[in-house]
Amino acid sequence: MENIYAVIMAGGVGTRFWPKSRKAIPKQYLNLAGRQSMIQMSVGRVQEILPDENIYVVSTRDQESILTSQLDWLPKSNIIVEPFGKNTAPCIGLAAIHLAKKNPDAIMIIMPADHLISEIQQFILTLKAGVDLVQKNQDALVTLGINPTFPATGYGYIQKGAPMQSEPIMAYQVRAFAEKPTLDVAEKFYHSGEFYWNSGIFIWRADTILAYLENLMPDLYQGLCQIAAAIGRSDLEQVTETVYRQIFSESIDYGVMEHASKVLVIEGDFGWDDVGSWEAVYDISKKDENGNAVKGNVILKDVKNSYIESTERLVSILGVDDLIVIDTPDALLICKRKKSQDVKWVVEKLKHDEQTSYL
Amino acid sequence: MENIYAVIMAGGVGTRFWPKSRKAIPKQYLNLAGRQSMIQMSVGRVQEILPDENIYVVSTRDQESILTSQLDWLPKSNIIVEPFGKNTAPCIGLAAIHLAKKNPDAIMIIMPADHLISEIQQFILTLKAGVDLVQKNQDALVTLGINPTFPATGYGYIQKGAPMQSEPIMAYQVRAFAEKPTLDVAEKFYHSGEFYWNSGIFIWRADTILAYLENLMPDLYQGLCQIAAAIGRSDLEQVTETVYRQIFSESIDYGVMEHASKVLVIEGDFGWDDVGSWEAVYDISKKDENGNAVKGNVILKDVKNSYIESTERLVSILGVDDLIVIDTPDALLICKRKKSQDVKWVVEKLKHDEQTSYL
Repeated sequence: MENIYAVIMAGGVGTRFWPKSRKAIPKQYLNLAGRQSMIQMSVGRVQEILPDENIYVVSTRDQESILTSQLDWLPKSNIIVEPFGKNTAPCIGLAAIHLAKKNPDAIMIIMPADHLISEIQQFILTLKAGVDLVQKNQDALVTLGINPTFPATGYGYIQKGAPMQSEPIMAYQVRAFAEKPTLDVAEKFYHSGEFYWNSGIFIWRADTILAYLENLMPDLYQGLCQIAAAIGRSDLEQVTETVYRQIFSESIDYGVMEHASKVLVIEGDFGWDDVGSWEAVYDISKKDENGNAVKGNVILKDVKNSYIESTERLVSILGVDDLIVIDTPDALLICKRKKSQDVKWVVEKLKHDEQTSYL
Repeated sequence: MENIYAVIMAGGVGTRFWPKSRKAIPKQYLNLAGRQSMIQMSVGRVQEILPDENIYVVSTRDQESILTSQLDWLPKSNIIVEPFGKNTAPCIGLAAIHLAKKNPDAIMIIMPADHLISEIQQFILTLKAGVDLVQKNQDALVTLGINPTFPATGYGYIQKGAPMQSEPIMAYQVRAFAEKPTLDVAEKFYHSGEFYWNSGIFIWRADTILAYLENLMPDLYQGLCQIAAAIGRSDLEQVTETVYRQIFSESIDYGVMEHASKVLVIEGDFGWDDVGSWEAVYDISKKDENGNAVKGNVILKDVKNSYIESTERLVSILGVDDLIVIDTPDALLICKRKKSQDVKWVVEKLKHDEQTSYL
């Protein structure tokens, strides 16, 4: 796996896990699915195929301290710091110029820090097959598509085109990208068999994505060139910040993928879950005979199918079903499971009310 | 109202209001129904008809400090301290010997510290009528009966006998007392029109109740005589404690009322509520347009008919109905409203698990 680099995008803010996730502790740093945080698990997965020095993490400045505390073995030179988040296009572009400068033949495996993957060996086989595909198609952008298991409205979709290969893993040309659909449309996508979920995991050469950026997002590309020129200089941080103040916030999907001429999709079938809400955390948690998943000092009576997490205090619950209870030292969330998407609303309300200590 | 004394029984432990009520802060010291605690409101009501020096409070030693902090104007000599609670018969007996020694013609108006009364003027009229009734029937025990508003299973009942008076307030001889009934029986009582709820409010001469105790509870009476002999001596506290270790725990209803020869009941129609659970607190609380009663820093969305109390923390609740949420610094209760009687179960469980810091 020479020339191969993992780029783990860790800058997200994740307001859906309030009150555990805060500005200072976003989702990827929480232990939502076991003893390790999401980012520790994400890094651990790529350590199976890459040496540590080929693993890069892109994060924002305000997360640098929690990042280094959770990944204390990671060389500081492998952390690429954004002054602040500007969505995935600048994040990936920034990583690309750093890697292209280091190794002109760099291939990037890009992935979010906050997804869960249950079948690690299959995931690794898929990454290897994706890298092979890029090595055979150096001008291509490869994306990992997840076989949908239900008509989700929370994900973007990728429509398959002509098949590219069937071994070792199925791959196709991409016919089209679709943004998060309505339920009607999601059901059509789901039953057609022609669509994958967009996982946000990409594989491509650094010079290829930079060429696409030059063509499709020229303003961003100009900014990245200024940063590239400053790499190794003492004013790198200052130049990066100046550029970031000027560029627009944009996703790589909207900025590049939907307009690129050669995009391939490789089939991902490795137990992927983006763990997008407390409900999803409940789904992946181990439950007792009443369907409850419990952490901390908790006393229950006539409680079913609930997720309960207590940090410091005694929590006692009587006679409720389908509840999410997240108890932190300064804030408490009680939420019907099916309403867990509304947690974002609480964060918006706190912002609006200027209750900033809870953000 | 010469010779008249109020005796407010404040020794109860009230486990139904956990986690607000604790061993050190029982129900009567909580602000469950307004800006004052239950005991402050109870004392305030009798202050309308009695001078402060005629108001006595009986409490247990471990509550003495919270009692004096909430009733800081009350002379120390008006606090009768039980070493520990032994139910209402010893409590009333102890008050009776203290008052009988002070004033051989003392009439006691005895009431629990933790009931709510909404129509104070009617309550006062009833007490005055009860005192008149005792003055006309010096050998009688007078109890206040509440007209039932539903077939409650949580109260004892009093069956009316022959009428004694119709003015200013209806009064009857008591035919029988009935313990807390099953629902079937409660419905019969309720529809018969022959029964009152037993309010636990009594009016009688101190010497009359002592005579009944001598006859019906001779062991308790002997103990009380030992205490009476020690009043004014330096070993009063020690003698009281020795006696309390020997006597049995017994209610005045079971120990005296059910066996006494002359018991009268006067009709109480003054908005009485014993506020027996968090559900009852919800019932008496002011609610917003969604039927929610809220105290503290609380953010709600799609929440209906719930009672929420936060002490220090931010509480956010999404998509639930009919919930009780009581948030204290070290413990949290979440309870379906109709399950609020089960809060006692939590306290039992904490005892069993030796989680004593939460008791």
